[in-house]
Amino acid sequence: MRLVGHGTSDAATTYGVYAFGLLAGWTAMRDSISLTVYYDAKLDFSGSVVIGLSQSGETPDVVDYVQRARARGALTVAVTNGPESELGRAADHTLSLEAGPEHAVAASKTYVNQLAALALLAGGVAGRGPEIAEGLRRVADQLAGALAPLEQAVRGVAPAFAYVGRMYVIGRGIEFATAREVALKLTETCRIAAEPLTATDLAHGPVAALDSLFPVWTIASRDASLPAVVDAVARIREAGATVVASGNAAGEIEGADYTLPVPEPPNPLLAPLLSVVPGQLFAAALAHAKGLDADRPTRLTKVTRAR
Amino acid sequence: MRLVGHGTSDAATTYGVYAFGLLAGWTAMRDSISLTVYYDAKLDFSGSVVIGLSQSGETPDVVDYVQRARARGALTVAVTNGPESELGRAADHTLSLEAGPEHAVAASKTYVNQLAALALLAGGVAGRGPEIAEGLRRVADQLAGALAPLEQAVRGVAPAFAYVGRMYVIGRGIEFATAREVALKLTETCRIAAEPLTATDLAHGPVAALDSLFPVWTIASRDASLPAVVDAVARIREAGATVVASGNAAGEIEGADYTLPVPEPPNPLLAPLLSVVPGQLFAAALAHAKGLDADRPTRLTKVTRAR
Repeated sequence: MRLVGHGTSDAATTYGVYAFGLLAGWTAMRDSISLTVYYDAKLDFSGSVVIGLSQSGETPDVVDYVQRARARGALTVAVTNGPESELGRAADHTLSLEAGPEHAVAASKTYVNQLAALALLAGGVAGRGPEIAEGLRRVADQLAGALAPLEQAVRGVAPAFAYVGRMYVIGRGIEFATAREVALKLTETCRIAAEPLTATDLAHGPVAALDSLFPVWTIASRDASLPAVVDAVARIREAGATVVASGNAAGEIEGADYTLPVPEPPNPLLAPLLSVVPGQLFAAALAHAKGLDADRPTRLTKVTRAR
Repeated sequence: MRLVGHGTSDAATTYGVYAFGLLAGWTAMRDSISLTVYYDAKLDFSGSVVIGLSQSGETPDVVDYVQRARARGALTVAVTNGPESELGRAADHTLSLEAGPEHAVAASKTYVNQLAALALLAGGVAGRGPEIAEGLRRVADQLAGALAPLEQAVRGVAPAFAYVGRMYVIGRGIEFATAREVALKLTETCRIAAEPLTATDLAHGPVAALDSLFPVWTIASRDASLPAVVDAVARIREAGATVVASGNAAGEIEGADYTLPVPEPPNPLLAPLLSVVPGQLFAAALAHAKGLDADRPTRLTKVTRAR
């Protein structure tokens, strides 16, 4: 399984690697777009399923990649909020995200729907479609119930970050997708240099840059990767950095300065649909506190045509 | 082909994706360590070659991954500067990097040797081993000749960056490996929040964060991805950011504030062995200008035991 996308859609590809790996035992990868689109590498696509992700369906090199992969024998699937788009026309099959129009430039509901589509598809491959569909319904209810209290909570936390210029966002395993998406939201709407890192990669260099003015957002969810996140936070606190803990196991992060927990879903694989939301809401609240327009970041457009 | 590593070794895995894709037409991927090590996903390794990269050969979850992949049927290869290490014992085959002891905590010559080992291996698979070996000998000569003038050049550029807190490092295609490694060196030795981005990903969000106090390091080498880098720099300059251009096509980046070119190798695939060097030398010069000890960054150790 080869997954491709840019920006928010690229964060969703990281989720796909885990959804297909854990549910179906498939080897899924975030494929290199440039190997195929720029270098025309002679790869064998005949045994591959390709999933191209794009909110608009108009991202040029994702469309180009899907066209070339299809011509080389891949089964291609477009996952997009724009089924009538170039990407929708390029692929063998299209899964329409039905997220409705994104009013803001920075995608949010599209991302959650991308995760749901990937989980459903992986569940279907594994013969567990109905179980995943039922889990998603439960997660939708949990999310509806959590939104108002989270919106209130982030408004209490965000102002303390008004002068922050750089952050790390830490996740591990399936929550690394969440780390990537939260970092992107902080970067594009709040103009923070926010870099996503796995809990382990933090120790391989970046921890050296931390200090009391370099805060860290951590995503802690109850699964096999939680001990790595707990270890990482101990190293972060040693450096004196402010720690925000989110995720359904946020309460287990000792010494966090701020805690933004979310409900625990029926299946741990669905945790990222909930754990991204505090980050999305926090980014909106922080942009507001900084006097920025979270819906229209400078130099960005709804459809990114850059190659 | 599944490649795994952390930190500098992870940057080298990115190079491996291109080396095996371009020379051999193989599908190579930076595999998820956590799927196998934390989640025990039921992946089929029987048709896979695994390359585990680690300077010391003692990175715990890389060793663990290689052991599990081998038990599941992968052909495993350790690429390490420590052939007598845990990793060397865990793999079917070991390629010793023979880089000699790394006196500094931040690996540098190990990285260049990792790229050379991956290029030789991919060349061998493609039946082009002697050509790549000959190219590497030529690159070694080019590097020897370029070192002294580059050391001089970076000393003139580095002091202007003494108060910089955040940077992006931009590369595309095969030079994305270089972007990752240069960003890591700036982070761990200079305490700059330096994030690697592809030229295209920059447009999908991060460009919104740029301003005149947020410089960008670009790697521009003569190959099919160069136009994407040229486009990205135009967007970066529109945001008013300071631009450093390195790589063998640095001279083609219009309006760069600083230019640190390197020689053009006989094969474009070998360009990253040269283009990483200005970044390594710049990081050392900037750490010195900031009064930091580039050889012993705070909170890091030679062998990273973190999981």
